[in-house]
Amino acid sequence: MSDLTEASVEYSHDGTRLVGHLVARADGAKRPGVLLIHDAFGVSDPMKATARRIATLGYTVLLADMWGDGRIPKGEEEIGPLIGAMANDRATWTGRVDAAHRQLLAQEQVTEGPVVAVGYCFGGSSALEYVRVGGTVAGAVSFHGGLDLVGTDWSAANKDASVLILTGAEDPMSPPQVVFELEKAMTTAGVRWEVTSYGHTKHAFTNPQADKSGNPDVMAYDVRADRRSWESFRLFLEELA
Amino acid sequence: MSDLTEASVEYSHDGTRLVGHLVARADGAKRPGVLLIHDAFGVSDPMKATARRIATLGYTVLLADMWGDGRIPKGEEEIGPLIGAMANDRATWTGRVDAAHRQLLAQEQVTEGPVVAVGYCFGGSSALEYVRVGGTVAGAVSFHGGLDLVGTDWSAANKDASVLILTGAEDPMSPPQVVFELEKAMTTAGVRWEVTSYGHTKHAFTNPQADKSGNPDVMAYDVRADRRSWESFRLFLEELA
Repeated sequence: MSDLTEASVEYSHDGTRLVGHLVARADGAKRPGVLLIHDAFGVSDPMKATARRIATLGYTVLLADMWGDGRIPKGEEEIGPLIGAMANDRATWTGRVDAAHRQLLAQEQVTEGPVVAVGYCFGGSSALEYVRVGGTVAGAVSFHGGLDLVGTDWSAANKDASVLILTGAEDPMSPPQVVFELEKAMTTAGVRWEVTSYGHTKHAFTNPQADKSGNPDVMAYDVRADRRSWESFRLFLEELA
Repeated sequence: MSDLTEASVEYSHDGTRLVGHLVARADGAKRPGVLLIHDAFGVSDPMKATARRIATLGYTVLLADMWGDGRIPKGEEEIGPLIGAMANDRATWTGRVDAAHRQLLAQEQVTEGPVVAVGYCFGGSSALEYVRVGGTVAGAVSFHGGLDLVGTDWSAANKDASVLILTGAEDPMSPPQVVFELEKAMTTAGVRWEVTSYGHTKHAFTNPQADKSGNPDVMAYDVRADRRSWESFRLFLEELA
């Protein structure tokens, strides 16, 4: 990790101050950009660790701030209203993704060329939502995204984007019927997609902390799905970058 | 490929002579076994090439003969009755897989330990069907298997097996509803599984010859799905072997 450099990056959307986190090569070398969108818990230390892990693969990563002021929600009671506000104001939701995307493209350490947006949980929903409204990323990856949050009208989608969805078959936020309808919508829209469903796998399967949530029926770490989904993501990045 | 050796292997099931094809290391080294089950076209040259490709990854591969006497069907008019006969006599169908499995385990070049069964098209259905009836492989992989051929009662399944299904979302032999029902059956049976569905992808997506079939609505080669599915298979083998 010693060859990486990290810094807070301030930007804004519609009057809201956003504080992302940039991870790049310490020698200033240009790398393809990856836009990382956090789960419900904001620009947290685990998300920064994920940003470093992606950067190590050979990318310049901007971890976007979706909540404003770098806010890190403390628990469920804060998360519900935050996500609800985004679901009820999709212009703001996707606008914040877009602001982060522009901020990433403006970084010196980012090559011109395709950018992939990747997100976990709420961030996965966000990456897909961004493609759905025409966001000009080359690819979007969702790790256990809440697919029930994603809009169903894909008529304005970015048809040049490729989508990779990695989901647990027993994730209550992504019931099979919702996955199926989303696949149909993407097919009709002409968006390329790949969906991997892991059997016996719940929400947040990449997160070792999931087992401490006290909701074993909802979320659980799964070492196999964690490893496999990361490999799928890596391959997806290689193909697009 | 020069470090591989190949040979025909004769065995039988229920009075039918079966002529498989074994690919192993030329130096006689023991390797974990992979049971490869052909598509509708028998122990063909392309299937032998696939056997070599798998062997190169570090396995001893037996390409099973499902049709008897090493028969290579010439076209659709031969294939329909062959597959139909298997679907109507599942004891013979899975019995031939089992005979090949035993034959593989009897080879000197195979280590004791887990065997993975992998098949293409009809062979994918066969690998899954074998797990469904309790076949003692550690894993089963289906590349664009006809999932509509696979039985729906998984109550006797080998619960210790892991299943990997790689399917095209527009494969008429694996409609989404069939995939969904199969997932549910495997979950209920306690079989570990992973299903990857490739959008805009038809039957036989790993086969460059598919584009010459004259059935572009049914089957088509897809370079991305080909590459991605192979990588998923490779990872699956690594995990189990």
